Amino acid sequence: MSKPAVGFVGLGAMGFGMATHLVKQGYPVHGFDVFPASVDRFKAAGGIPALSLQESAKDKPHYVCMVASAPQAQTVLFGEGGIVEVLPQNATLLLCSTVPASYAQSVEAELQSRGRGDIHFIDAPVSGGAKRAADGTLSIMAGASEAALESGRFLLQEMSDSDKLYLVPGGIGAGSNMKMVHQVLAGIHILGASEAQGFAAQLGLDAVKTAEAIKASGSHTWMHDNRLQRMLEEDWHPGASALTIILKDVGIITTSARQNQFPTPLCSTAEQVYLSALLQGYGPVDDSSMVRQYYKEAITSVSTKSAEETAEAQQLVLDVMEVTNLVAAAEAIGFARHLKVDLKQFFTLVSDAAGASRQFMSKGLEMIEGNVGKNSETINDAIARLEKAAQKARDLHCPLHLGNAAMNVLFMAKRAGLGDEGSTSVIKAFGN
Amino acid sequence: MSKPAVGFVGLGAMGFGMATHLVKQGYPVHGFDVFPASVDRFKAAGGIPALSLQESAKDKPHYVCMVASAPQAQTVLFGEGGIVEVLPQNATLLLCSTVPASYAQSVEAELQSRGRGDIHFIDAPVSGGAKRAADGTLSIMAGASEAALESGRFLLQEMSDSDKLYLVPGGIGAGSNMKMVHQVLAGIHILGASEAQGFAAQLGLDAVKTAEAIKASGSHTWMHDNRLQRMLEEDWHPGASALTIILKDVGIITTSARQNQFPTPLCSTAEQVYLSALLQGYGPVDDSSMVRQYYKEAITSVSTKSAEETAEAQQLVLDVMEVTNLVAAAEAIGFARHLKVDLKQFFTLVSDAAGASRQFMSKGLEMIEGNVGKNSETINDAIARLEKAAQKARDLHCPLHLGNAAMNVLFMAKRAGLGDEGSTSVIKAFGN
Repeated sequence: MSKPAVGFVGLGAMGFGMATHLVKQGYPVHGFDVFPASVDRFKAAGGIPALSLQESAKDKPHYVCMVASAPQAQTVLFGEGGIVEVLPQNATLLLCSTVPASYAQSVEAELQSRGRGDIHFIDAPVSGGAKRAADGTLSIMAGASEAALESGRFLLQEMSDSDKLYLVPGGIGAGSNMKMVHQVLAGIHILGASEAQGFAAQLGLDAVKTAEAIKASGSHTWMHDNRLQRMLEEDWHPGASALTIILKDVGIITTSARQNQFPTPLCSTAEQVYLSALLQGYGPVDDSSMVRQYYKEAITSVSTKSAEETAEAQQLVLDVMEVTNLVAAAEAIGFARHLKVDLKQFFTLVSDAAGASRQFMSKGLEMIEGNVGKNSETINDAIARLEKAAQKARDLHCPLHLGNAAMNVLFMAKRAGLGDEGSTSVIKAFGN
Repeated sequence: MSKPAVGFVGLGAMGFGMATHLVKQGYPVHGFDVFPASVDRFKAAGGIPALSLQESAKDKPHYVCMVASAPQAQTVLFGEGGIVEVLPQNATLLLCSTVPASYAQSVEAELQSRGRGDIHFIDAPVSGGAKRAADGTLSIMAGASEAALESGRFLLQEMSDSDKLYLVPGGIGAGSNMKMVHQVLAGIHILGASEAQGFAAQLGLDAVKTAEAIKASGSHTWMHDNRLQRMLEEDWHPGASALTIILKDVGIITTSARQNQFPTPLCSTAEQVYLSALLQGYGPVDDSSMVRQYYKEAITSVSTKSAEETAEAQQLVLDVMEVTNLVAAAEAIGFARHLKVDLKQFFTLVSDAAGASRQFMSKGLEMIEGNVGKNSETINDAIARLEKAAQKARDLHCPLHLGNAAMNVLFMAKRAGLGDEGSTSVIKAFGN
């Protein structure tokens, strides 16, 4: 039996991978993008080029929207020449863009008010990067009605790894909320990768050896792994993930944090650094270029220290990153709990997605299980490690945006009387 | 009777004013600086040029050290060819540089250990800017033994306004600690002036009219007044106060905050922005250039909004600045209390010095008097004002470093159950 036609809009780094993967799986995929070059590239990869947005949707029983933002999605769905007016009866519509939960809910309402309640709409943001998109092994967080999930499940399954398709309870918006709290970690760790490698460079450490030490330590993050090569090679133009992409995701988080009056000091700090870099012209540049906010030269150009100096200096980098990631885990979990996100599912999702970190996997799990304050390193111990690194960074005139933000959270926890508790108690500073 | 000879080292922006003021008062002042051009300029202003550091000190019964930092002071005092070995018996030595209290205490100890316990040493940092230095109307925070204060009092009085000479109880180090907690406010407000005017520019507001509105409002600060003209004229090279100066002062604060494990989230945020600007080459540039971290053009070049749009946009600027300054007051007072600084004296000092703000004068006074949480605007109200402004800044892609840091402190206070208390209760987030 031949496979059903799929319409697709948004052939950027992620969307191109997703669409061409479906092509490889034998689907006739009709792809559109506002950039004709992207459509040509898609055609060269075996896709069917759509000459207009509506052509990509007309008579297509299944449709994937993977544009960059809620405003773009709004134009694609409901703007003049948009897809909703031409999608066939009972079509399945996957919104895979990262958008605010409130936006996904507004789409559901607008479909109803326009008399297109027949469309099976699924709020299905994805995570995992361009490579996993192309391999069909993304993490997908899908929320929708039972009927919509039923009709869209095969497509979700094609694009995700078998154990990384999360059917998030709560209907439309729940998938986007899950993605958002995941992005708290992603947004912090992307800057954290640059902060660690920039600080290492300022310390006169070899970039690759530092990265190996990070990978072998409790400070490791998925993002550090993923961004490292592009950071080393300064493969930034266009790179794989523009600063504007994570800046948009982080903006969704801080806007929601304001609406919920929930503190996100680390994510907010990252956002401010991203906005500063945007002002410096880094918007379209790969986000691994954030290392420039810490070190002005290529980090591979550092003339390195002697072996005995190296061990001590390297420990400072690991300490900053590890303690920062601990506080990041507390911030993300605290916010997820506040939003009533299913924490067990959140943990499983993060474990294998772009927000993963060793700290989240160990200390984060203890926080999720409510087993807080019992780990052997106290808040005072964590402060001591961070303090030493922060003082060294200051002596070198090296910015340490996240490390200092994390330290101030720990100081507040200490002032609230938590100094002698295990460091996982830092989540109490977020009111949990 | 002719006036006694005074030796003076450090003829920078502040030191030059102080030294030439003493010249005008009829003192034979022997001035030295590592930059010969500064010595020449001092000579042209009626000073006596010293050809070497030791010449400025030999046979001078009174000596003022106004170099830029503790390391510089250490070299001047105790380095090869330093002054301590040539100062006459029972000389009075004023250290007016801003240094850590622990450094001032180390000078006292080193004088003893070198057999120069006879020197009347006074820890006497100053505040007030170059103009007040030249007018002899500085604020001075002097701590020392009774005997030393006795011998140096006339000199302290010459350089300060009659009601701005603070004899700080606690001996050596107490003056520097008082200066340090004062600088918490100065360090935040310097960036705050740029944040307010940069945000105003992004909003399309006229710079001068915004400044007038700030001056007339509860958001006003001494620093905003002082930096405004240089910001408008971009009079930055060299300007009057290099970024490196406030960066040094802020470094003293955050180092001490780390040693005391006390949270200084706003001051720490300001430091990170200053360090980022340092990396961009702003070190020797006047600190009012920090407006460039928020707006890329001259703020006087903004094509302004219509009158009806203006009022609402202007209110956003005033709200950010006012609520930020409220949190800044809590941070400074909380830290001062933690360091056991005399809070009444601190209040009096700040009222008339570079750290002054309307928020500190009103809400800060309530905090100092222990009359906390009873003002009519609640923490929730303050959050609401800040939230609205922060969302608008985000929509404009305008960084708002301090505003967001302040908001996260307020969110933490809210999560700790303080939302319905008066906004002065934010000091409780600092553990007070």
